Amino acid sequence: MPNNNSPIGIFDSGLGGLTVVRALQELLPNESIVYFGDTGRVPYGSRSPEVIRKYAREDMDFLLSKNVKMVIAACGTVSSVAADIGNTLDVPFLEVVSPAAKYAAEHTKNKKIGVIGTNATIRSGSYEKVIQSISPDITIYKKGCPLFVPIVEEGLVSEDNIIALETAKHYLLPLAEEGIDSLILGCTHFPILKPVISKVLGSDVDLIDIGITTAKATAKYLEENDMLSTQKEGKCEFYVSDRTAGFSAVASRFLGRSIDGEIERISLE
Amino acid sequence: MPNNNSPIGIFDSGLGGLTVVRALQELLPNESIVYFGDTGRVPYGSRSPEVIRKYAREDMDFLLSKNVKMVIAACGTVSSVAADIGNTLDVPFLEVVSPAAKYAAEHTKNKKIGVIGTNATIRSGSYEKVIQSISPDITIYKKGCPLFVPIVEEGLVSEDNIIALETAKHYLLPLAEEGIDSLILGCTHFPILKPVISKVLGSDVDLIDIGITTAKATAKYLEENDMLSTQKEGKCEFYVSDRTAGFSAVASRFLGRSIDGEIERISLE
Repeated sequence: MPNNNSPIGIFDSGLGGLTVVRALQELLPNESIVYFGDTGRVPYGSRSPEVIRKYAREDMDFLLSKNVKMVIAACGTVSSVAADIGNTLDVPFLEVVSPAAKYAAEHTKNKKIGVIGTNATIRSGSYEKVIQSISPDITIYKKGCPLFVPIVEEGLVSEDNIIALETAKHYLLPLAEEGIDSLILGCTHFPILKPVISKVLGSDVDLIDIGITTAKATAKYLEENDMLSTQKEGKCEFYVSDRTAGFSAVASRFLGRSIDGEIERISLE
Repeated sequence: MPNNNSPIGIFDSGLGGLTVVRALQELLPNESIVYFGDTGRVPYGSRSPEVIRKYAREDMDFLLSKNVKMVIAACGTVSSVAADIGNTLDVPFLEVVSPAAKYAAEHTKNKKIGVIGTNATIRSGSYEKVIQSISPDITIYKKGCPLFVPIVEEGLVSEDNIIALETAKHYLLPLAEEGIDSLILGCTHFPILKPVISKVLGSDVDLIDIGITTAKATAKYLEENDMLSTQKEGKCEFYVSDRTAGFSAVASRFLGRSIDGEIERISLE
């Protein structure tokens, strides 16, 4: 049975969820973390809901086998189409959509919010469901941005990179024309592109980083439920479902520092 | 048992292999075809050889269950890392690497050939193995181009599209500086980008379309082995492993015409 010093389990279709780990480690450095990146089956964002739900169930079962005290779906796609599965677990479950949607609904001034994500996330309408349950008079402008994921994975992320910039213009200028004052970066890869996105949209648009809003929601939940770790320092374990070669280089881009924990390859099949 | 009028089985990780179907139908309109696109597990190109080999075996078994007279791996990645599995089948097996590599080796004048493909294809060194077995004095310049696949799938393929153009420059100008006179488009998605690639490299560089070289190799094999169909007109069946919604629109981009056969979703698991 997990206790307060058991790790928090975090999973994503790949490595993007490490942006949530990064925010969580900054906020709660004494929590231990078990991360699972399903790199053997990435990306989830272009798949059908049934396939995504099957994968999400297997990812959660893997984390539960590591005796985690909580499960976080650090994946916009899973959060959008499989959150109900997480809510049936024996441990608390958090996802990335609700905290970001609540933050946006509470902070927009002109009631025009943009949402970007993978195609599956955008098709699911997950963010607007939460936003409009809080404030039905908010208008949502949304756009699937599938090219952003491989652009981040190729490392074409500097604010001067013409490929990243032109792709951001292609996707985001139509949202800018609608006059949005907030943009939810609804995929865990997207915070890496903040400098580029900010250059295209200008500094007046509030870019909402789902890593940060999820980390804050996690801290709040653990505190309110007396589940905070009493350890001096947390540990991190990393698991992936495809080769570990090259993992450290890509992972450090998302994590903002070099990996110091173990990396192990596992099979879910 | 298959006979001469049994279909040719063709598979790919997704829909890119339809560029091979297109070339084959133009050359051999009276052959029937069963196509399988593993859209539930696409892309293969970023995965490890072990995972790709497992998937390839399952794809081939599915086609054999359809009583095909021949199997074609219309996927640069599978052809590069799992062709040996195809060679153990009870029916003839063709892949896309050898015909294109042979064509390039026989047609280059300055003995400088460029090869582009997914990262897995490029890492495997498959094209250069064939080329250098024919002509060891040819120099190969190669580059993984992972962004080309989602650019094609997003339909950003016109020769004026700035995202496609800048991405092509990013990948290809270093090859142009080496003075290549031929470029193997080593992924079945890439022929769709011929206008863009040609604009970046100029018309002096011979762009080798693996759909066309594979179709020619298939016709030659069937003829030499008395396996040509005697039907008046071939039929086409399409199978995919994820949702069929949207299939027709994307598929017609690769196929160069609208889909007129059946489309069925199957599960390999």
